[in-house]
This record gives sequence, C-alpha cells and structure tokens, in this order.
Amino acid sequence: MEVPRLKPRREHANAERVDLAEIAPELLPYLGQAAYLQLEAFQGLAGVVRAVPELEAKEELSTAAGLTLGKFHGLVAEIRRHDGEPAEVMRPFTVAIDRLQQVTSGADWQETLLGVHVTTGLLDDFFIRLAAGLPKDVGPRAAQLLGSDGGSEAIGRILAAELAADPVLGGRLAMWGRRLVGDTLLVARSALHNSGNASTDEQRIEPVFTDVIAAHTRRMDALGLTA
Amino acid sequence: MEVPRLKPRREHANAERVDLAEIAPELLPYLGQAAYLQLEAFQGLAGVVRAVPELEAKEELSTAAGLTLGKFHGLVAEIRRHDGEPAEVMRPFTVAIDRLQQVTSGADWQETLLGVHVTTGLLDDFFIRLAAGLPKDVGPRAAQLLGSDGGSEAIGRILAAELAADPVLGGRLAMWGRRLVGDTLLVARSALHNSGNASTDEQRIEPVFTDVIAAHTRRMDALGLTA
Repeated sequence: MEVPRLKPRREHANAERVDLAEIAPELLPYLGQAAYLQLEAFQGLAGVVRAVPELEAKEELSTAAGLTLGKFHGLVAEIRRHDGEPAEVMRPFTVAIDRLQQVTSGADWQETLLGVHVTTGLLDDFFIRLAAGLPKDVGPRAAQLLGSDGGSEAIGRILAAELAADPVLGGRLAMWGRRLVGDTLLVARSALHNSGNASTDEQRIEPVFTDVIAAHTRRMDALGLTA
Repeated sequence: MEVPRLKPRREHANAERVDLAEIAPELLPYLGQAAYLQLEAFQGLAGVVRAVPELEAKEELSTAAGLTLGKFHGLVAEIRRHDGEPAEVMRPFTVAIDRLQQVTSGADWQETLLGVHVTTGLLDDFFIRLAAGLPKDVGPRAAQLLGSDGGSEAIGRILAAELAADPVLGGRLAMWGRRLVGDTLLVARSALHNSGNASTDEQRIEPVFTDVIAAHTRRMDALGLTA
C-alpha cells in the first residue's frame, strides 16, 4: 500500500480514508451524481409523506424531505459555483438513478421508506468518502453537506414503530433491505467511472465498500433487521 | 354595512378588507386548515418534480416545493406557539383537502401543475384575507407567511413554456382551470365554519370571493388562458 504523505489534499484524511484520497473524482460529475441522488431521495420521501396515514409521521417526514431538498440545493449551488450548468451536469446520471428509484420503490410506504433509508445511508456514506479526493476548496464542504442531518433519526423511529406494531413486517423488510444493497452499490461503483482510472480505483475502493456496508448493517441492526 | 371603526384589530386593514376583519376565525382551526393546505400543495409540487421530464424544470419546481414546505413548517410552528398539537389541529381538515387534491390531480403533469397553481393562488389569497380577523399577534405573521414567495413565478413560466410549445394544450388547460375553481372555493368557504358565525359571514365574505376570483382570472390571463 502506497502512502504518499506529501500529497496536500490528504492532510485531513484519517487512517481509514488513506486509499480513497487517491481516487480523484472529476468534480462536476461527482457533484452532478450526488445532487441527482439527493433529488431522487427527496422525491421518495415526498411520496412517503403522501402515503403515510398518520399526520405526525407526515410532519416528521416532510422535515426529512426538506432537509434532503436542502442538500440537493446545496450541491446545485456548488455546481454553479464551479461554472457548471446543473441540468447538464446531472443529465448523465438520470437513467441509472431513475432505475435505482424504481427498484427501491416498495409495495407499500414502509418498504419505500426503508428503500430511501438504505440507499441514502449507503450512498451518502460513500460520497462522503469520495469527497476526500476532491479539491480542498470543495471536498470538505461537499462532505459536510452530505453528512448533515437528513432526518434519518425520524425515519428510523417511524420504521421502528411500524416494526413494533406488526410482527410480520420485520421479515419482509429485512428481505427487502437485502435486495436493495446490490443495486445501490452498483450506482456507488459507477461513481468511480468519473475518475478516469476505474480499474485501479476499483481495488482501492474495496475497503471503503466494506466500511460503508458495515455502517449499513448497523443501521439495519438498529431497526432489529438482519442485513 | 356596519363599519365599527373602533375595533383595534382593524387598524391595519385597508378599505377592501373592511368586512372581512369582522370575521374572526378561530385561531387553531384557521392555522390547521391553512397548514394542511400547504402540505397538500407541497406534495402536489413534489409529484410534479418527479413527473416533469426536464431537469431545469425539476430544479425550479423543487425550489417551489421547498418554499411551500417552508410555509407549512411556519404554520406548524405557529400552531405549536399557540399550544396546539399540529396533528390534532390539522385532522378535521384532511378529508376535504385530500378530496381537493384528488380533484385537482390532472391527467398529466401540466394539468396537475396548473391545479397547484390555481388552488394555491385562490386559497393563499383567501387565507391572507381571513388573517385580518385573527388576533394581532398572529394574523399579520400568518398573512406574511402565506403571502411570501412560493415559486408561483417559476410555475407560471414553466406552464407558459408548455402552452407556447403545444397549441392544443391551451384549450384543455383553460377548461381544466375552470373545473378547479368550484371545488377550491368550497374548501375556502368551509373555513368560515370555523368562525362560529357562518351565515352572517357568508354574506360578508362575498366581496372577498369576488376579489379572490378576480386575482385568479388575472393569473389565468397571464398564461393566456380564459378563466
């Protein structure tokens, strides 16, 4: 393992992120993909706001939708700050991400909400790690934006209440959660193709995937679901 | 026509609003109905964000959705400030407003977007007028919140572009817009039932309806649609 200590953009990276800072995603494609993922997550949450019957849950999820929309608008502002046209920059990613949205839309709002929770959790984690390879004037800001509160605590609480109220739901949601991981990681992996060094990067990225999946497992555990 | 000059809550009301300040809606039901209407408008806009194909329009409409969500959260905060439980306070209005949402959901995103534009325009105007009869510590704040930018300019621009691109759409949207007015005004009128003085208020409110409908006609005119 190479450890090029002198590379300035590495200075804030911690030990876990050593290899990932070697991957330098192209800035605008990174921002475009990350932005469209937030827009998709926002739409998923807004759909659940409509579908969920309880008004308390509607309010909480609307807050989560607003926070996610804020991340989208933050990334769009970042695209403009770097002289990108948001629509142009997002366009290459719409087909794959729309497909992910279709795959993660469940048979009911509980599945769809878990779909948003799982995919957003995995992808935000992954894009935060990737941000270590961005220029220093934007990487930390993008990571902070993606890492900011998106309402996942409320989402977890609402899912936990549903699981507590329905003993059959757990098995179904656990299976559903497992189905989502593969498709979500495919989209994450596609982000490496923006770095122009895909095959080397695929190897470098493996420990990151391991970490990101471990965090996913902890999120599922918190719901009492086997990942 | 009675003109009770001494009533302190009238002091900011202009001539047009003279009669309406006589109608004193109960505060929490007013806020609950107004809040749930914003939540419904938010959901409508979020649905159009998903349905509209162009990424530029998605971004603009997501901004409108965020502004509308901000109005909802502002009204919810107002409910809490007055010791209301938002879910309890909104609950009496969900059936009628969900029905309005069903009626105003069109056959395509252009109809649905016009539905949001028309119903939000009419109802925001109406609730701003009704706010004149609320206590002074909350009425002006509610009116300002409802009158704040909700992205209607962008919505109008997007609809105008669609109308310009499709010569057949105008006739269909004009007819659609006319269908929406009656159901929307039914919901507006139901707000009077919160004042405990419904039959007198119905008479007092007529000039307000005239004004609110005139503003609606101007919005339709701006799109080149006959109201």
